[in-house]
Amino acid sequence: MIKVIKNKNSEDKKFIEKLLKRNQLEIEKINNQVKDILYQVKTYKDEALKKYTKEFDGVWIEDFLVSKYEMEEAMNNINTQLKEDLINIKENIEIYHKKQLKKSYFIEKENTILGQIIKPIEKVGVYVPGGKAAYPSTVLMNVVPAKIAGVKEIIMITPPDKDGNIKDSILAAAHISGVDKIYKVGGAQGIGALAFGTESIPKVDKITGPGNIYVTIAKKQLFGYVGIDMLAGPSEILIIADKWANPKYIAADLISQAEHDERAAAILVTSWEPIVKEVLYQIELQIKHNDRKEVIKKALKNYSAIIITDSLEESIEIANEIAPEHLEILTENPFDIYKNIKNAGAIFLGEYSPEPLGDYFAGTNHILPTSSTSRFSSPLSVDDFIKKTSLIYYDKEALMKSKDCIIRMAKEEGLPGHANSIKIRFEEM
Amino acid sequence: MIKVIKNKNSEDKKFIEKLLKRNQLEIEKINNQVKDILYQVKTYKDEALKKYTKEFDGVWIEDFLVSKYEMEEAMNNINTQLKEDLINIKENIEIYHKKQLKKSYFIEKENTILGQIIKPIEKVGVYVPGGKAAYPSTVLMNVVPAKIAGVKEIIMITPPDKDGNIKDSILAAAHISGVDKIYKVGGAQGIGALAFGTESIPKVDKITGPGNIYVTIAKKQLFGYVGIDMLAGPSEILIIADKWANPKYIAADLISQAEHDERAAAILVTSWEPIVKEVLYQIELQIKHNDRKEVIKKALKNYSAIIITDSLEESIEIANEIAPEHLEILTENPFDIYKNIKNAGAIFLGEYSPEPLGDYFAGTNHILPTSSTSRFSSPLSVDDFIKKTSLIYYDKEALMKSKDCIIRMAKEEGLPGHANSIKIRFEEM
Repeated sequence: MIKVIKNKNSEDKKFIEKLLKRNQLEIEKINNQVKDILYQVKTYKDEALKKYTKEFDGVWIEDFLVSKYEMEEAMNNINTQLKEDLINIKENIEIYHKKQLKKSYFIEKENTILGQIIKPIEKVGVYVPGGKAAYPSTVLMNVVPAKIAGVKEIIMITPPDKDGNIKDSILAAAHISGVDKIYKVGGAQGIGALAFGTESIPKVDKITGPGNIYVTIAKKQLFGYVGIDMLAGPSEILIIADKWANPKYIAADLISQAEHDERAAAILVTSWEPIVKEVLYQIELQIKHNDRKEVIKKALKNYSAIIITDSLEESIEIANEIAPEHLEILTENPFDIYKNIKNAGAIFLGEYSPEPLGDYFAGTNHILPTSSTSRFSSPLSVDDFIKKTSLIYYDKEALMKSKDCIIRMAKEEGLPGHANSIKIRFEEM
Repeated sequence: MIKVIKNKNSEDKKFIEKLLKRNQLEIEKINNQVKDILYQVKTYKDEALKKYTKEFDGVWIEDFLVSKYEMEEAMNNINTQLKEDLINIKENIEIYHKKQLKKSYFIEKENTILGQIIKPIEKVGVYVPGGKAAYPSTVLMNVVPAKIAGVKEIIMITPPDKDGNIKDSILAAAHISGVDKIYKVGGAQGIGALAFGTESIPKVDKITGPGNIYVTIAKKQLFGYVGIDMLAGPSEILIIADKWANPKYIAADLISQAEHDERAAAILVTSWEPIVKEVLYQIELQIKHNDRKEVIKKALKNYSAIIITDSLEESIEIANEIAPEHLEILTENPFDIYKNIKNAGAIFLGEYSPEPLGDYFAGTNHILPTSSTSRFSSPLSVDDFIKKTSLIYYDKEALMKSKDCIIRMAKEEGLPGHANSIKIRFEEM
């Protein structure tokens, strides 16, 4: 059910490449469909949103805004334990993320001031998926860093169910984390509404949060017009294990990844070949009673692998090449190994740090770069909700000292107007 | 030649909107052309690069790599003064950008460690435009922050001229700032080469640097597959001026922006109506002897404006709405005003801080967010060349304490495998 490969021949390499290119961003049909949806939303605004919500979510929504009454009801409906859990998790996320807040800096010397001013982004739109992938934890992961950054207005959108409702736990998480407004709209049409604004939904400066392929493609198409956090693909885990690792835990953690999505990837990389048989046995055993068995089987069969290597060093090399979203290090000395990891969204060290700990509790962000993008991108953080502005001040004396160099460079680059802008300031009146 | 408007009626609003949407990212024809180019480069690699370089740059290049000999020759060809200038500018950029370098952080408590690990991106590709827009200063602005971040390998690409050469000053700036390898290829094909890799050009993790519309659309299409800094549009300036401002300087600075590109935008916002006539007069006077007169006239006519407001407050409001790349504050008390600026790439304070000072000398980055994107994005900085990884470690006791909350959340979200991954660690053997 899960491919066992020795990463030696080119065919296996190809399989790994396939794993990493499963984000499907290039599906022409979806691209065109999304383009059309965005055009309709831009042009017909609320009218288009209503039409698409009826078509895709099966419900006619007249007023997209979640009312105060709906919010109160949701807070009453959820049990005290869940409320407490959400508050605790929120606090853990706050502790971790507060350290990310940066201050402006200024460099003053000899009649000059240079600065980097940090400001929050004014308005942010947060996307929260609906249906089975409607996770209250994801609401917290999105909103808490935005709040810490000081974002003035946080607009959340999420698709309604067939009765026009949003899950209580989603509304509760939004309330607890301080979302300003929630609208019942999802998909590419929701992303379009946030980017362009409609009669009822305000235009935002940046959109964050994971979504399905339509949402992701809409974000990609709007990149540059509106701020985008990252393009989320299906989730993935890579586990580096040695002789010391417990096959029961390995199997459990591969399964926990695979249950997310039929296109999730669960990869074990080990130089200890005897463990493979035990892991395979444990997978069979553990999925028997899992309700999401069918999803798990598909993910394991199509996008997962056990890779046998010659050494721990080779295992690390493969991990760096794959650049996984989640990396578990289940080895004797995980602290020695993580220092050699160049690319990963989040690293989980040792046998008592399984991935769900990061999803729900520890406080690090669970919105992470997928599909090898940890080579160049990072977990969602406070940085995603701020922007910087440079500040330049020179007085007359300071500009006088610098003017010759500036004029020479302007001439070198063929920009006489640039030279003139300096020269004119020192001409006789 | 430059539209004078009072920002009151909707027609004028539309004109301003037009200014800000001039990046042309949605031109269908170019989009399809770029898509085809990228496909060809991905499939036929060097062969495709050679074909396109012949087609677009008018020269057949057999070996794209700039040789050590060519580099030495360039360093010999440039005069000592330019060399000195480039070194000075480089040092100024270093001083400003070194303050951006962040350290990893770790939070240790009660048998748990959380961390945010900062690492440089491994391989970065830097795009440098060719022809008239080949600016050695832009090389420094790209490469210095990458070096400070600790990027392991910096690959620069730039289109060759008709004889297959690169400008000496470009090569010199690359050498001085420490580029590892330079390849003679530009356009969408060059971006494709960096993203996919070819026989001669290595695949990189992220691509930075401004380029023409083909380059920008190629970057947009590859966003998510490879890291992208931002989508650069044509340059723009907005000047806030009051009674106190010198119309000569205003005119000079509007012109210096307009000379970049026929689609550059130069906007003056002032509540002091009498200044308008003087500025118009000065523009006429100053462009007379400018070699780039034709470009300037087009930019001023099509994408520029003088906006008359009722108050300084309204001027500030308009600046925030337009969110300009460059903002000059030419008022009596610029230091009071900049604090109210929410959106701008770079702010220039007072009459001796003209925009070319930032382009060439001060040390702040001149690669800035254009077309209103300073609402959500920032000047190029060291942050663009690092990535973060989260670290999570819990020991058995710590996970034991947290396990109930994690299991409850996993159940709430309908992910039994996540719950099992925790439970299994505390089952009897």
